[in-house]
Amino acid sequence: MITMINVFTVDPPNQQRLLDLLARATDEFVRQAPGFVSSTLHRSIDGSKVAMYAQWRSIEDYEAMRADPGPLLLFKEALTLARFDSGMYEVVRSFSPPEESAERPPLS
Amino acid sequence: MITMINVFTVDPPNQQRLLDLLARATDEFVRQAPGFVSSTLHRSIDGSKVAMYAQWRSIEDYEAMRADPGPLLLFKEALTLARFDSGMYEVVRSFSPPEESAERPPLS
Repeated sequence: MITMINVFTVDPPNQQRLLDLLARATDEFVRQAPGFVSSTLHRSIDGSKVAMYAQWRSIEDYEAMRADPGPLLLFKEALTLARFDSGMYEVVRSFSPPEESAERPPLS
Repeated sequence: MITMINVFTVDPPNQQRLLDLLARATDEFVRQAPGFVSSTLHRSIDGSKVAMYAQWRSIEDYEAMRADPGPLLLFKEALTLARFDSGMYEVVRSFSPPEESAERPPLS
């Protein structure tokens, strides 16, 4: 499994338009592509960024989707609004808060 | 809840050292901070980046951790190895693959 982290830098007045475009591309095309596992769309609090965090079964599945002419027009429109920084990752480790059971009162 | 997406750009020979530093800072300090919810550490396939994707209860909790002198030395060491691009986000929407039940044969 691979993780794509794509960060778009945008003028704040265009943040909502970029979010709408990426949501539409994901709904209509990306989530239906073979090998798509899940994705989450984020807006930065300061208005200047949008981030898509997505999991795919393999690099090949992701690249096949990117080569699909279906979502290409929407991606091209997104790139008229934003600078795009893309990264392809694998998960190294996940972290959770420490167990709190020792601090909890025992169940009666 | 807020999502922090921190992307570090690093010389590939230093990627593993940076991963070790960030894992140690998270283990020893960050995950024990009030308001820490979860985080995932990623290595880029091409060796040039490291990404930390983390959820916090609030901006105030994250900022209190960043002001804590405990992990500061480890963060400073990380910044001798890497350029750092930080973003603070809220989740807009999550996407899943379409339901496949219609394509599955009925249970006998």
